[in-house]
Amino acid sequence: MNAPTPSDVLRPQTHLREVPHDFLAALKTRFGPACSTALAVREQHGRDESPFTHVPPPAAVVFAECTADVADALRLAAQFKVPVIPFGVGSSLEGHLLAVQGGISLDVSRMNRVLSVNAEDLTVTVQPGVTRKAVNDAVKSDGLFFPIDPGADASIGGMAATRASGTNAVRYGTMRENVLALEVVTAQGNVIRTGTRAKKSSAGYDLTRLMVGSEGTLGVMTEITLKLYPLPEAVSAATCSFPSIEAAVRTTITTIQMGIPIARCELIDAASVRAVNAHSKLNLREEPMLLMEFHGSPASVQEQAELVQDIAAEHGGESFEWATTPEDRTRLWTARHNAYFAAVQSRPGCRAITTDTCVPISRLADCLLDSVAEADASGIPYFLVGHVGDGNFHFGYLIDPDSAQERETAEALNHRLVARALALEGTCTGEHGVGLHKMGFLRDETGAGAVDMMRAIKQALDPDNILNPGKIFCMD
Amino acid sequence: MNAPTPSDVLRPQTHLREVPHDFLAALKTRFGPACSTALAVREQHGRDESPFTHVPPPAAVVFAECTADVADALRLAAQFKVPVIPFGVGSSLEGHLLAVQGGISLDVSRMNRVLSVNAEDLTVTVQPGVTRKAVNDAVKSDGLFFPIDPGADASIGGMAATRASGTNAVRYGTMRENVLALEVVTAQGNVIRTGTRAKKSSAGYDLTRLMVGSEGTLGVMTEITLKLYPLPEAVSAATCSFPSIEAAVRTTITTIQMGIPIARCELIDAASVRAVNAHSKLNLREEPMLLMEFHGSPASVQEQAELVQDIAAEHGGESFEWATTPEDRTRLWTARHNAYFAAVQSRPGCRAITTDTCVPISRLADCLLDSVAEADASGIPYFLVGHVGDGNFHFGYLIDPDSAQERETAEALNHRLVARALALEGTCTGEHGVGLHKMGFLRDETGAGAVDMMRAIKQALDPDNILNPGKIFCMD
Repeated sequence: MNAPTPSDVLRPQTHLREVPHDFLAALKTRFGPACSTALAVREQHGRDESPFTHVPPPAAVVFAECTADVADALRLAAQFKVPVIPFGVGSSLEGHLLAVQGGISLDVSRMNRVLSVNAEDLTVTVQPGVTRKAVNDAVKSDGLFFPIDPGADASIGGMAATRASGTNAVRYGTMRENVLALEVVTAQGNVIRTGTRAKKSSAGYDLTRLMVGSEGTLGVMTEITLKLYPLPEAVSAATCSFPSIEAAVRTTITTIQMGIPIARCELIDAASVRAVNAHSKLNLREEPMLLMEFHGSPASVQEQAELVQDIAAEHGGESFEWATTPEDRTRLWTARHNAYFAAVQSRPGCRAITTDTCVPISRLADCLLDSVAEADASGIPYFLVGHVGDGNFHFGYLIDPDSAQERETAEALNHRLVARALALEGTCTGEHGVGLHKMGFLRDETGAGAVDMMRAIKQALDPDNILNPGKIFCMD
Repeated sequence: MNAPTPSDVLRPQTHLREVPHDFLAALKTRFGPACSTALAVREQHGRDESPFTHVPPPAAVVFAECTADVADALRLAAQFKVPVIPFGVGSSLEGHLLAVQGGISLDVSRMNRVLSVNAEDLTVTVQPGVTRKAVNDAVKSDGLFFPIDPGADASIGGMAATRASGTNAVRYGTMRENVLALEVVTAQGNVIRTGTRAKKSSAGYDLTRLMVGSEGTLGVMTEITLKLYPLPEAVSAATCSFPSIEAAVRTTITTIQMGIPIARCELIDAASVRAVNAHSKLNLREEPMLLMEFHGSPASVQEQAELVQDIAAEHGGESFEWATTPEDRTRLWTARHNAYFAAVQSRPGCRAITTDTCVPISRLADCLLDSVAEADASGIPYFLVGHVGDGNFHFGYLIDPDSAQERETAEALNHRLVARALALEGTCTGEHGVGLHKMGFLRDETGAGAVDMMRAIKQALDPDNILNPGKIFCMD
C-alpha cells in the first residue's frame, strides 16, 4: 500500500482540459448573471476543507436555481466535453470540489427549497442545496427530525454524494439508509428518477444507492427524498469522563455488543475537549470523554442510561453529567459539531489532514489505541474525535501546509492507520468519501477488480468523463 | 401502462440462444458428475413458483461447490456466450429461474457453509446456498438472529438477488439494509469483493447494493456478509381480529405513524386465515386479522403492546390473543410463512399470480381497499396477506393455469392494482423482484430514463448478456 503524496494526489491536474470560449459564451447567454467568471467567485468554488490548496479554480461558476438549469448546464458541458463539479456549501474534507481537470463549478446552493413534507409517511423531499439544519427547521413543527449530521451544516446534496453520516448514525444509519428516492440529471443532461416514496422496493437495480456516495461522478442530484423520524418522546444527553481513551473505547464496545440502542456515542480526546472548551466557552473536564444521547420513551431512556452508566463505571468512568434542558443539549452537540473547527483554530494557519477509518466494533480498540500511540510518538499536533459506536473515528493531524516534513509525517501516520484498519476488515472512509485523497486507499481496500467495475460503470454513464473527473479513481 | 400478457412475458424465449456441444463437453470435463444433463434435473431447475409453466428447461445444470467452480463455469460460459441462471432453492415467484433464452442453470445449493460468525460484531458470512433458517440455526447459540424471512426457506443468495424482506422488515429493514459485503463472480469469471465488515463506508460506488436486487443479471454472489441482531430480551406475539380489513389497515397506519417500533405487523384476510387453519391445524378466528410481534426489554414490549391494543380497540379490534410460549410463537409464524402454500393448496391444481405492490403508509388504505373491492367483484378466488407495516401486501389470484380467461382477469386486476400503487407514489414490487412478470411495470414505475441507465450498466458489466438474460428489462 502506498500513501498518496501531495504530488500523486494532484497529478490529475496535469490533465487540465480545455474550456472552449464558445462554451463559456453559450453559458453566459443561457445563464446571464447566474454564470460568473469573477476570480473571487471562482476561487471560493475551487477550494474546500481538504488539505490541498494549490489547484487552479474552475473557469466559471453557474448558479442553478432549478432542475432545468442543471440539465441545460450539463447539456452544454456534454456538447463541449467540459468537466462539471457540483457544489453545495463547500464543506468537503477530501478535495471533492477541486477543479483538478479544469471545467466549471455547478453551484446548487440556490436550489434550497423544501419541496414537500409528508409527515404521515415520515418523508421529506428537498432540493440539493437545502442544508441539514434547514431540513430540521422545516419538519420540527410536525414533531419530526432528520438525524444525519456531519459536523458542518452541509447541503443534503453534498451529504448524499459523499454518503455522509455523523453522530446519530449508530442508531439511525447513514445517507445510505436514509435516502429513499432521487431526481438526477445525467451526464447527457437527461432528467431521471430513481426510487419511490415506498419504504422498500425490489424494482430493478438500486440506482438510488448507486448515486448516493458517487461523489458527483455519475449524475447531479436535483431532488432528494429523505426518511424522517418522530422526535423521541424523551431525550437525555450525558458526558462521561474516563481515565484513558482505552476505557472510553471499551465502554463503547460493550454498549454496542449488548445491543443497547444508544442514539449517539461520541469519543473526544483531551486535546479536543480543550479546543472545544476554548471555542465554545464550555467547562468540560479535559479528559477523554464520551458524549452520549439516549432516545425513547422515558422508561426506555432511563433503562438505557442506567445500563451504560454501569458499563462505564466498570471501566473507571466518572458519573454521568447530564445535559438536561434542550438548551444544554444543543450547546453540547453544537460544541461537538464545532470540534473540527475548534481544533483547527487551536493551531493558527494550520490545515487538517483528517482520517476516517471505520472498523468492526470488536476491532475498534486494536485499531484506535495503536494509532494513538503512533500519533503521540510522532510529535505532530492532532485531535481525535469519533463516532465510536459505529467503529468510526477521525484523527485530525494539524499541519503547517508549507512544511513538507509535517505533511509527510502526517501522511505516514494516515497510511499506517489505514493499513491497520483494512487488515482489521474495515474501510478507509466511514463517511467523508474518497475524493482525491483516498484513491490509493480505495484500491487497497476493494482490490483492483472492484475498482475496475466502478470504472466500467462510470464509463457507461459518463463516457466523456465530464462529471467531477479525477475523483474516486482515475479513468486513465 | 400495459399489463404484460403471458405471450408478452415469454416473448424473449423466441431468442433461444445456442448452447454449443463443445461448451457442454467442456463443462462435463471440468465438472464431471456435478454437471447434469438429465431431463428430470433440468426440468426441476427450469421452473419456479411463478405462474409461467411452458418454458423449455436449461440445457444443463452445474452444481457449484466453491467460488472456483462458479468462476470456472462463468469463464466457460463467457467463452461460448451461453446464458447462466443462478439457482438457490427455486422459490422465486417471478420467473427468475426460467431459461427464457436457453443456457445453463448454475445451482449453488451445495455452497451451504456458514463461513464465519462474528458474534461480537453482529455479522455472519455465508455461502449463497445457505438458507435463512440455516443462518438462524448457526447463530442462535450466540444469542443472535437474522431477521429477514420471506415465506419460503429461501437461500441467502436468492434473497440478496431479489432484495427480499418479509415479516420483520418493518423494524429491521430488508436485504438492502442487511447485506454488508459480498464476494461476487463477474460475467467474465473474475472474483471481486464489495464492501467490508465495517458498519458503514463511503469507499466509492456502492457495488454491494448494486448487486443486491440485481436478480442474477450482474454477477453471481459467492459469499455474503450479513448483519445480525441480538435476540430480544423479551418477545411477545399477538393476534387481533377486526370487523373489516379497513379496521386492521387503519390500526396499522396509526401504529406506524406514531413511531411504535413494532417488530412484525402482518395482515391476513379471512380467506387466508381459513386456508392457514386448514393447512396448519390452527383455530384462528376466521376474520381479517393482524399478526403482531413486539421486541425489546420486558417493559418496552409491554408498553408497545398496550399502545397498539388501544389503537386497535378504537378501530373495533378484539382483545389481543397472545402467543406466549416460544412454541406457540413458532407455530403462529410458521403458519404465516405457509400462508402462500396453504392458499394455493386450497384450490387444487391452481397457480397463483402474486402481486407485490408497496406504497407509503399514508396511502395504504386507498391502495388496498379499492383493490379488495375489485378482486371481490371479479369472482376470481384470491387470498390477501401483507407486510402492512411497510405498506406492502400481496394478493394471490388463484387461477386455473389452463384458463386463458382466468389468467386475463387476474392480470387485469394486477394491472389496475399496480397502476393505483404507482399513482400513490409506490412501487410495483416491494420484495419479490421484477423477473419476467413485472418488466412492463418497471418501465411504468421508473420511466424509460432509469431503465436506460440500468441497461447501460448491464451492458458495461455483461456485454454478451450471459447473466440471467431476459429478466428485469430487455436488452434489445
